[in-house]
Amino acid sequence: MQFQISKELIERIEQLVEERNNEELKLHLEELHHADIAEILDEISLDDATYVIKLLESDKTAEVLMELDEDDRDKIINNLSAKEIAEEIEEMDTDDAADIVAELSDDLKQSVISHIEDEEHADNIVELLRYDEDSAGGLMAKELVKVNENWSVTGCMSEMREQAEEVTRVHSIYVVDNKDRLKGRLSLKDLLTASSDAQISDIYIDKVDYVSVHTPGDEVARIMQKYDLEAIPVINEMGRLVGRITVDDIIDFIKEEAEKDYQMAAGISEDVEADDSVWQLTRARLPWLILALIGGFVSVKVLGTFDAAMEKHGELFFFVPLIAAMAGNVGVQSSAIVLQGLANQSLKGSLFKRLIKEVLLSLLNGAVLAILLIVGGMFLLNLNLDFGLTVGISLISVIIIASLIGTFVPIILDKQGIDPAMATGPFITTSNDICGILIYFTIAKLILGF
Amino acid sequence: MQFQISKELIERIEQLVEERNNEELKLHLEELHHADIAEILDEISLDDATYVIKLLESDKTAEVLMELDEDDRDKIINNLSAKEIAEEIEEMDTDDAADIVAELSDDLKQSVISHIEDEEHADNIVELLRYDEDSAGGLMAKELVKVNENWSVTGCMSEMREQAEEVTRVHSIYVVDNKDRLKGRLSLKDLLTASSDAQISDIYIDKVDYVSVHTPGDEVARIMQKYDLEAIPVINEMGRLVGRITVDDIIDFIKEEAEKDYQMAAGISEDVEADDSVWQLTRARLPWLILALIGGFVSVKVLGTFDAAMEKHGELFFFVPLIAAMAGNVGVQSSAIVLQGLANQSLKGSLFKRLIKEVLLSLLNGAVLAILLIVGGMFLLNLNLDFGLTVGISLISVIIIASLIGTFVPIILDKQGIDPAMATGPFITTSNDICGILIYFTIAKLILGF
Repeated sequence: MQFQISKELIERIEQLVEERNNEELKLHLEELHHADIAEILDEISLDDATYVIKLLESDKTAEVLMELDEDDRDKIINNLSAKEIAEEIEEMDTDDAADIVAELSDDLKQSVISHIEDEEHADNIVELLRYDEDSAGGLMAKELVKVNENWSVTGCMSEMREQAEEVTRVHSIYVVDNKDRLKGRLSLKDLLTASSDAQISDIYIDKVDYVSVHTPGDEVARIMQKYDLEAIPVINEMGRLVGRITVDDIIDFIKEEAEKDYQMAAGISEDVEADDSVWQLTRARLPWLILALIGGFVSVKVLGTFDAAMEKHGELFFFVPLIAAMAGNVGVQSSAIVLQGLANQSLKGSLFKRLIKEVLLSLLNGAVLAILLIVGGMFLLNLNLDFGLTVGISLISVIIIASLIGTFVPIILDKQGIDPAMATGPFITTSNDICGILIYFTIAKLILGF
Repeated sequence: MQFQISKELIERIEQLVEERNNEELKLHLEELHHADIAEILDEISLDDATYVIKLLESDKTAEVLMELDEDDRDKIINNLSAKEIAEEIEEMDTDDAADIVAELSDDLKQSVISHIEDEEHADNIVELLRYDEDSAGGLMAKELVKVNENWSVTGCMSEMREQAEEVTRVHSIYVVDNKDRLKGRLSLKDLLTASSDAQISDIYIDKVDYVSVHTPGDEVARIMQKYDLEAIPVINEMGRLVGRITVDDIIDFIKEEAEKDYQMAAGISEDVEADDSVWQLTRARLPWLILALIGGFVSVKVLGTFDAAMEKHGELFFFVPLIAAMAGNVGVQSSAIVLQGLANQSLKGSLFKRLIKEVLLSLLNGAVLAILLIVGGMFLLNLNLDFGLTVGISLISVIIIASLIGTFVPIILDKQGIDPAMATGPFITTSNDICGILIYFTIAKLILGF
């Protein structure tokens, strides 16, 4: 099985586009999986990609478009007319279609929707646009297979076959009453083995997991993972079955959330990629750097108040980056562990117990590091014992405080309803830098006196 | 729909365990989903949890065990006899069963396997134990629905119903030849609508994605995501169909990988959780801190070589934490963006172009920050212009170098076949601290002279 696109194929496609050799192009591309075509379009120029999208049939290109990187897709769509966009959308599932339409300008939105020939499809898209994109309503698709509890098994089978035509994958068959309210689900196995004159109401399973249109996306992800669901039905305020969310959308959601947390921890505040423009990257990175700069100003001020030390113990200043770096690293470690615990809802036990544990952990790590520092300092840097003790004791204290800040700031933010991921990366490093320097010089003043 | 376990329920269960009220316990627990039971066991003591596991039927507890946190599961299993473990394993899918058996000591492994009554199940588990746990062979389950290409549709339907009993979810029906070699797949829709005397070979789809037992897990995850597959068949060296991997296993895999990268970036080298022991946490955290300490020693040495500056321009040392922090933050930002690009295989274009872009980006960010620093420094800290320029120019230079290190160290490691995630967090911060300080004092010496 070959899952990689060869360089030769990409070059061949580029050449065929240049030659406007439509026949050969179609021959090459039509047998490929839409995800593979998307990978090729990702590699060639935007103009070439747009040419290919216009050339191929909409039933293929609609799926190709959904596989493309969002930025590339937006650029290609901008090169299409309202009618061409409508043709692509006609072939998409409602959830994908709504995502595309949501990105269009208001004028274009109207025009594209009016060009959609299938009225039901257009209505469904308009309905989905109403929901917040991170809620179950924004994640769901309208395509699903549902049967009425009052149908017979025979009637149900023929109805189902018809509905299944429109649905890429039949995960579950949902059972509704005459008012379209979700009653339960049907297993295909039971349907196959039931006698043909039985009623659906006799054989359906009335235990079914569902979410409301307003359930937040991360809650949907948590439920689907916990119960290993491949699809979950969505109901509206009246209990009516209005859509379903499938596991592939949730995988994308989980990946995006993980990337967002990772970037947040690295001090990047928007969802950016390496290939975004310098301007987009600056917008995502600069605010955090300005925060760090302000923190830097505070540390300059703090160090300035200890300038009396410079005459008698100037070498104290040589250890400032070491102390600050250790404070930063310990803080980031602690906050990362707590954040993952908060995200997985796996933090158990009382806050007091956690406090004791963090202090113990820091004492253990701090003691090992302090001994290494004192011994290494005496041998490699010719420090005297007094000075070694000063730096060693400071290191232990700084590590304890840094781990407490790293542990409890996210917990407190979380309790206040603020996203605790804010408190990682630059935020923790900066505040721990400042605290670390303050503790270090205060202890030095007490021991060495200046 | 209620997806949260109430505190009252947990207390009630604890009370019932204490009273050894088995009837009531069963009544309370048997109607719950196994994922909910697991959540309850997570909250009560290990002894109580073991009691519950021994009390309930294996067909329920096998699934509960699989939902538990790995550490808790291992502890509970250690309290069971070989025969009791075998009973649990009997009820598990082969992939889960193999995961459990793999964790047992060699003696216990033998004894547990010999207690499994279903010989085929035992053989399957032994087969799965042979594969590396991060390969397709280690991820797959033996349970699947397969039909022979020479069967008729009628024969196929009855065979399938039998096989489906053993398989929790029929994602796909695979078609094999007489030698069990994978030939294609069958859509349920086609099977339902085909005439009953047709042969499978007439109606099956010969295009099917598959992986080999040796395909690495991350490659399987990539393929299943790219092609939106819910299950993928696994073949051995002879092309025989030996198992299948379902999407729920891949979700766990993706989540674990994301967590590992996140922890690596925070300087944590093992998969630890907030509730692990102090010893486990130390083992995961201390090595990175020692690395940072060694970096700290180097920075002490570097600062020591510039001690001549202390007399004439002591205030230079006040800006050391600011410069080091900016270098660290910029480096972490750059490396995080490149790492995600490498992970998604979305890094395009030549290295030279990337170099130019990073320099441009750093110049832009650096210039804004330097102006803020100079203006802020002159007004808030009463710096003179010469000194302000020294710090400002240093800041721009440090940011450029830090972003280049952050960008290219991961790319170079990746090209060398080393996991680029190693190069984030403490590693980047430490090396950028040192480089930053060196650049800063070198520029200061050139401008201010000391």
